[in-house]
Amino acid sequence: MANPSLLILPGDGIGPEVMEQVKRVIAWFGDKRDLAFDVSEDLVGGAAYDAHGTPLHDETMARALQVDAVLLGAVGGPKYDDLDFSVKPERGLLRLRKEMDLFSNLRPAQCFDALADFSSLKKDVVAGLDIMIVRELTSGVYFGEPRGIFEEGNERVGVNTQRYTESEIDRVARSAFELARRRNNKVCSMEKANVMESGILWREVVQKVHDEDYPDVELSHMYADNGAMQLVRAPKQFDVILTDNLFGDILSDCAAMLTGSLGMLPSASLGAPAANGRPKALYEPVHGSAPDITGQGKANPIACILSFAMALRYSFDQGDEAARLEAAIETVLANGARTADLMGEEGGTPISTTEMGDAILKAL
Amino acid sequence: MANPSLLILPGDGIGPEVMEQVKRVIAWFGDKRDLAFDVSEDLVGGAAYDAHGTPLHDETMARALQVDAVLLGAVGGPKYDDLDFSVKPERGLLRLRKEMDLFSNLRPAQCFDALADFSSLKKDVVAGLDIMIVRELTSGVYFGEPRGIFEEGNERVGVNTQRYTESEIDRVARSAFELARRRNNKVCSMEKANVMESGILWREVVQKVHDEDYPDVELSHMYADNGAMQLVRAPKQFDVILTDNLFGDILSDCAAMLTGSLGMLPSASLGAPAANGRPKALYEPVHGSAPDITGQGKANPIACILSFAMALRYSFDQGDEAARLEAAIETVLANGARTADLMGEEGGTPISTTEMGDAILKAL
Ligand SMILES: CC(C)[C@H](C(=O)O)[C@@H](O)C(=O)O
Ligand SMILES: CC(C)[C@H](C(=O)O)[C@@H](O)C(=O)O
Repeated sequence: MANPSLLILPGDGIGPEVMEQVKRVIAWFGDKRDLAFDVSEDLVGGAAYDAHGTPLHDETMARALQVDAVLLGAVGGPKYDDLDFSVKPERGLLRLRKEMDLFSNLRPAQCFDALADFSSLKKDVVAGLDIMIVRELTSGVYFGEPRGIFEEGNERVGVNTQRYTESEIDRVARSAFELARRRNNKVCSMEKANVMESGILWREVVQKVHDEDYPDVELSHMYADNGAMQLVRAPKQFDVILTDNLFGDILSDCAAMLTGSLGMLPSASLGAPAANGRPKALYEPVHGSAPDITGQGKANPIACILSFAMALRYSFDQGDEAARLEAAIETVLANGARTADLMGEEGGTPISTTEMGDAILKAL
Repeated sequence: MANPSLLILPGDGIGPEVMEQVKRVIAWFGDKRDLAFDVSEDLVGGAAYDAHGTPLHDETMARALQVDAVLLGAVGGPKYDDLDFSVKPERGLLRLRKEMDLFSNLRPAQCFDALADFSSLKKDVVAGLDIMIVRELTSGVYFGEPRGIFEEGNERVGVNTQRYTESEIDRVARSAFELARRRNNKVCSMEKANVMESGILWREVVQKVHDEDYPDVELSHMYADNGAMQLVRAPKQFDVILTDNLFGDILSDCAAMLTGSLGMLPSASLGAPAANGRPKALYEPVHGSAPDITGQGKANPIACILSFAMALRYSFDQGDEAARLEAAIETVLANGARTADLMGEEGGTPISTTEMGDAILKAL
């Protein structure tokens, strides 16, 4: 049987630096665990714009649709701030999400024991935190039409459209309920049904999917503003949070920051289960391209390596190998290895991106 | 000269309970500080629906447009959850905001010294916190058309429209810059200009207003998802945060919860400065109707009383009297008076809503 295929898109900023370490980890699994991947690499975001004048070349898009999974680093940076909207680095990422139909974005917010002190929240509020945010990723206000800046009378108006069909809500709700069953069996769905009709439909469809096919899962609904509050107040009340594209963007970043270690958080973006059992999938760290530390060897590669662990679990059904990799990372942290982003007030000497890679390989 | 007029709309849930204490405070200012108000009272939200079948009677709306300031308690509750969207309690509040044209919503997130332990965040992260969120309140996705649930093919689609004109952005930006000048002279504007055209226009207009008329104020721009993160990570970096209706809803609740004492936070919603110097204005606590504790005498009246203090400051140019009221509340807290929502882990016996009112009057 052919090896499973991986397309690596390092992207911009610290993307290439952290991806270097992921490549070493991938190679290790090939060498030591007989789990070889066919790895290819290409450009996305500002890097693609620099080379081709577009943040995602059609050929790259076509390749992404062919491979078993895509690993992405990060996109964007101040260099591209003044580009036209249509060729901004982010458009490359959004095109991948849309054309691969990656409607279910899984963003774990997990607090690592060794790093609990690190959060701006009190230790007892976040220690042991383990939430999974399921964010709808291919619709809503990110993609709805009409959109644009239009003339109206003697001024301009900026327009975007929030739009959700029943089937779009249905499928992402199912993915949240499925996940909840493998976790603590609780889903909290968040919208603004008190002010938005799209939220009313969202709530209704989520409830229907629940009642018909997942009555065993505990379901609650919460307004998104209250959701933000509750995340700050008592995040451990949640298991799976299900929400739309825009609320998910904000709430997942809020949840990520609760853990105090953004450099640690991976994500998976999944499409519908395919015939071969492998959904279309893209894995990427939650952190951005971090232009302020780019090229300094300071970046923490763990979020990106954990994204590969998610690939092992969700694309390649290698839950045990994913757990092996995650355990290696826990060990390394427990032993005190810290990149610059993980230096607390006590100080100490941070290790470099490569040294963190070394330590993880050693622990493996 | 006629007394200034106040319309009190206690609303639902704990609204009437906390408003009772505000009325005592208002009476005190009439008796002791020669600052008498003509106070009238009416229904809003579920209470108005129960009486008239609408969450805001036309007569109440007309009155709100006549008075110098409106004080509102809270709207909503589970009893009204199944009402049609068009008569939900929230529609009453939204109609007030829209028809009074209250485009600038000021939401202070302030951490009271006596309560700093109370936050789920570490004390040093929030002690002394003093942010002002300026949220646009009469446009955006809350009011944009088209909106609704429509049939499309053989399924339904939920639609809302995010819409901002240049002049809508311009006027709220000005109110943020004006405020910043009276504070620490810094504004951070938040949107998603990387994915939404309405955000691009927002950023452009805010920058233009700044460059033309407020170059002395320090202006920065941040994506709203990063904004949520930064609020959790290091909230003290902010002075004034300027943002749109929907982002403002979520970010201000997140900021409010950082302080750990939601029962303490007031808000002001202001229109354009009028000929008499008094903008149209509505003042309300940030907390909701809290159905879980309604009727138990447990509610904290401070947020609502502080909303009246904001009225003194922003509607009646009585900054000194506002400061007097705020100081009385600080004293009461410093003396250890605590309603149930302010009980920490140490325990103790909470005082009732009325007892908190007593204590504040005594301190005055
Ligand atoms: C880079 C940007 C387009 C993206 C988003 O808004 O979805 C990012 O913030 C994310 O959450 O993945
Ligand atoms: C009650 C509701 C309509 C309102 C809103 O969404 O604006 C509330 O959450 C608020 O923030 O004042």
